[in-house]
Amino acid sequence: MDFGTLSGRAVVVRVSDGAEIASAVHEYTHAVLEDTLPGSSTRLPDAWALQVPQDYRDVLCRAVPEALATAGVAPEQVVGIGTDFTACTMVPTYADGTPLNEDPRFADRPHAYVKLWKHHAAQGQADRINDLAARRGERWLPRYGGLISSEWEFAKALQIHEEDPEIYDAMDRWVEAADWIVWQLCGTYVRNACTAGYKGILQDGQYPSEDFLGELNPGFTSFVTDKLDQPLGELGSRAGSLTAEAASWTGLPEGIAVAVGNVDAHVTAPAAGAVEPGRMVAIMGTSTCHVMSSTVLQDVPGMCGVVDGGIVAGSYGYEAGQSGVGDIFGWFTSTGVPASYSDAAAQAGESVHDYLTRLASAQDVGQHGIVALDWHSGNRSVLVDHELSGLVIGTTLATKPEDTYRALLEATAFGTRVIVETFRDSGVPVEEFVVAGGLARNPLLMQIYADVLRMPLSIIASEQGPALGSAIHAAVAAGCYSDVPLASKSMGKVRRAAFVPDESRSRRYDALFEVYRGLHDHFGRDPLTMRHLRGLRRDALARQAAAR
Amino acid sequence: MDFGTLSGRAVVVRVSDGAEIASAVHEYTHAVLEDTLPGSSTRLPDAWALQVPQDYRDVLCRAVPEALATAGVAPEQVVGIGTDFTACTMVPTYADGTPLNEDPRFADRPHAYVKLWKHHAAQGQADRINDLAARRGERWLPRYGGLISSEWEFAKALQIHEEDPEIYDAMDRWVEAADWIVWQLCGTYVRNACTAGYKGILQDGQYPSEDFLGELNPGFTSFVTDKLDQPLGELGSRAGSLTAEAASWTGLPEGIAVAVGNVDAHVTAPAAGAVEPGRMVAIMGTSTCHVMSSTVLQDVPGMCGVVDGGIVAGSYGYEAGQSGVGDIFGWFTSTGVPASYSDAAAQAGESVHDYLTRLASAQDVGQHGIVALDWHSGNRSVLVDHELSGLVIGTTLATKPEDTYRALLEATAFGTRVIVETFRDSGVPVEEFVVAGGLARNPLLMQIYADVLRMPLSIIASEQGPALGSAIHAAVAAGCYSDVPLASKSMGKVRRAAFVPDESRSRRYDALFEVYRGLHDHFGRDPLTMRHLRGLRRDALARQAAAR
Repeated sequence: MDFGTLSGRAVVVRVSDGAEIASAVHEYTHAVLEDTLPGSSTRLPDAWALQVPQDYRDVLCRAVPEALATAGVAPEQVVGIGTDFTACTMVPTYADGTPLNEDPRFADRPHAYVKLWKHHAAQGQADRINDLAARRGERWLPRYGGLISSEWEFAKALQIHEEDPEIYDAMDRWVEAADWIVWQLCGTYVRNACTAGYKGILQDGQYPSEDFLGELNPGFTSFVTDKLDQPLGELGSRAGSLTAEAASWTGLPEGIAVAVGNVDAHVTAPAAGAVEPGRMVAIMGTSTCHVMSSTVLQDVPGMCGVVDGGIVAGSYGYEAGQSGVGDIFGWFTSTGVPASYSDAAAQAGESVHDYLTRLASAQDVGQHGIVALDWHSGNRSVLVDHELSGLVIGTTLATKPEDTYRALLEATAFGTRVIVETFRDSGVPVEEFVVAGGLARNPLLMQIYADVLRMPLSIIASEQGPALGSAIHAAVAAGCYSDVPLASKSMGKVRRAAFVPDESRSRRYDALFEVYRGLHDHFGRDPLTMRHLRGLRRDALARQAAAR
Repeated sequence: MDFGTLSGRAVVVRVSDGAEIASAVHEYTHAVLEDTLPGSSTRLPDAWALQVPQDYRDVLCRAVPEALATAGVAPEQVVGIGTDFTACTMVPTYADGTPLNEDPRFADRPHAYVKLWKHHAAQGQADRINDLAARRGERWLPRYGGLISSEWEFAKALQIHEEDPEIYDAMDRWVEAADWIVWQLCGTYVRNACTAGYKGILQDGQYPSEDFLGELNPGFTSFVTDKLDQPLGELGSRAGSLTAEAASWTGLPEGIAVAVGNVDAHVTAPAAGAVEPGRMVAIMGTSTCHVMSSTVLQDVPGMCGVVDGGIVAGSYGYEAGQSGVGDIFGWFTSTGVPASYSDAAAQAGESVHDYLTRLASAQDVGQHGIVALDWHSGNRSVLVDHELSGLVIGTTLATKPEDTYRALLEATAFGTRVIVETFRDSGVPVEEFVVAGGLARNPLLMQIYADVLRMPLSIIASEQGPALGSAIHAAVAAGCYSDVPLASKSMGKVRRAAFVPDESRSRRYDALFEVYRGLHDHFGRDPLTMRHLRGLRRDALARQAAAR
């Protein structure tokens, strides 16, 4: 099962070869709460993003039986269930796992709800955590590229503590949704090694110290022991057995294996046959997440994190990311392309994306004369700065929409190259680039990545990578394979070297990349210009709000 | 009469008060030759722009009688005719003024045609002229801001000499179209002081020396004496009297005054009542030309030129320019605005420009968080670099078309501010800003300029500024006024201080201008990035052409 931002998906997968027999999707009734709570008219502040846990249970009740029925598979044939989730998505619960928002006393309290990964209202707390950790020289900080994110467990918990102490005090456990759904399935709360490391700052068996937390806020001193610490589960191991209640929800047999929870990006690596060291998997959609296993432990500047056993048990799992990729292309096609183009696309029976891609494909490298910075959503790796913004340079009166579109595709490839080079420069080799996610379907984009990266590109051969990855973990948890790498060999699906670089195009991209790199360092390493613009924008918006 | 890039206009103007009685326009049959010569399929090289002189004569034959008829004015009431022209637009002629392309031997030779102002294929020659002049420390070079343009007389003539020596040898005179049309009207070739100074490098009574020209190219040594030098005419003076032939073309009385030729931008100053020192007139259309008279002679870095008597006799006339203004807005509205916007504009009965302007008007200064560089057509002043290109910084996924549109409007205002500040810093005061040209009709744009410049804006009160300016010169040439400033007082039309700056908006624009200035200096003073992109584009286009 794959729990996404707006829906959850169940897929029935064959243990022997990974064949995906059938699938079903259930959309969350409440989607993402960004404006108000259910049944309330009180507006949530800016940058909040909440969810309702019952929506996750509904996926178990709806999508699983539907997928089984479509597959024509008898429930008794199912040997196990594996799950992956968005992260860091956090559920505040009582000791028995009941989410606080399900207590009628707290139904009107925003902090009682799930904080979705993209809840960005704890930036102030994250900034303080980073400042203090840097000042104290906390040893865990370099493991996260020097900065932890406002999306993660500590920043979000500290926000509750400081903004709604009553909720904080009532909360017994602060649970990753990835683990909460497993708890619902098997009745046992096992903390998965992946999110504990990447989002929970667990390094070398230790969380940030009480001393550190107390200096951050005296009332936060015992946060780890009080609310967070919990026995860990290795990825691919069995968290427990399906309870009678969960069996009744899903129609699956009581007692079958439930795998330890996992994260959508990380679980995709075995689905793409990429658990070996040096195979970087890029899950490319609205944003891109890069995960890679390695035998070496190094501090890589600006990566999201490195976690022992964070992708597969026994290797160091590295994560990096680009905060805007497909959503930049989407933004451009919906706001920057004239009627003459959308009409022509419609007439040709193509999407605007496909139409622009076709026009852009006819171009030679460098022909449009443009370089863009892909920071419309800020930069996650390697600059870790959400105040950065997009830039396009080189436009003339002859610039056409397909020129800018192609430059934006290329910009994200250049952004990936910066990440790959940073890993290499830090002593962590990157030997293969494997693409999963919706953008793998754009051949122009894939060829650009191969040419820019000067690496062969492999493409996952499944449309449902995360769910397939979860199934691999379920098969291992059920004892059908001895470990995840072995299961990945049989069940994972990848087209190796589906795109190979062309030396002459690569050489020309080197020249464009040099321009990108110059802009990257000028505006990213010394971000005053872009931060100044953000500040002026905030001032203007505040003035307008005050005038209303 | 006003001869533009695509058409010529005749306006009947009353001498006593400048009232514009009637007008008529005739479009040039051949418009601009950029692809092929008439009746030929041979392609012209990139950056060529030619015209056909007969098209100009046709304006005399068509537009003048039509305007007269519409005005209901008897031909005998007309006392004189004045003209302005695009510049530097050059006609290669025989000694009697016959253009070389009208000789059947040369009808298929591109260099026999008029080289329109925007013929940019002599950049190589211009570069060599600039390099040599800088190396030799030629005294005229600082009068042109340190660089002469590929559009001007010497670069274009040298191109003919080097690319088609037979045409060069056959050419007796190398004539500004501004003077050629006067020659056609009165049978006398008088070289006007304006183009001789601004485009012909005539300074302190001297052209570039034979020594200089010989070093440039030995065969070019005697170019000035052989083809260029000619008695000068002061602006507003009488070049001659209308010939019988021209009287038959126009229907005007033989013998009436024909004024010395002039340039569309410069002739607008008296039409806008702005001949006094320190009144900068900006003729804002697809591009902007700034003209200003002053009592002081200074070298202003990056200006287009300073010419004694270049705008009005007796003052130093300064010229500066922005190579892209309205055409940047036009490019954006036609290529960067989605169907939802063009549909909404159509539904509201507005142009896309008006619709975007309305949306952008609702914004506070800085709210869009964007700054743009207005170099989509390169930068004329103060950087004088056609290899520069456009840039937009600060975009996010929340950026809307009206945000970018407003940022582009503002960018051109910032570009103007750089020019005004450069004049002031060079000791040439700018005391009033007077706007003429089509863009004066956009009140948002005008307010932005007032706020950004921190100066009151005056607006010309004529829709036909250049033609009115030409009429003022005709009235002086006919002896109805003793000089141009006096005629301007009676016949010029301006709304003084039509827009005044708002201190709080100006203060916020200061902050945005600081960002603009930083980008301007980073990418403009050290133009390697943008030049590199241009080079890569040229390489790619050449590869594509070679592959065809």
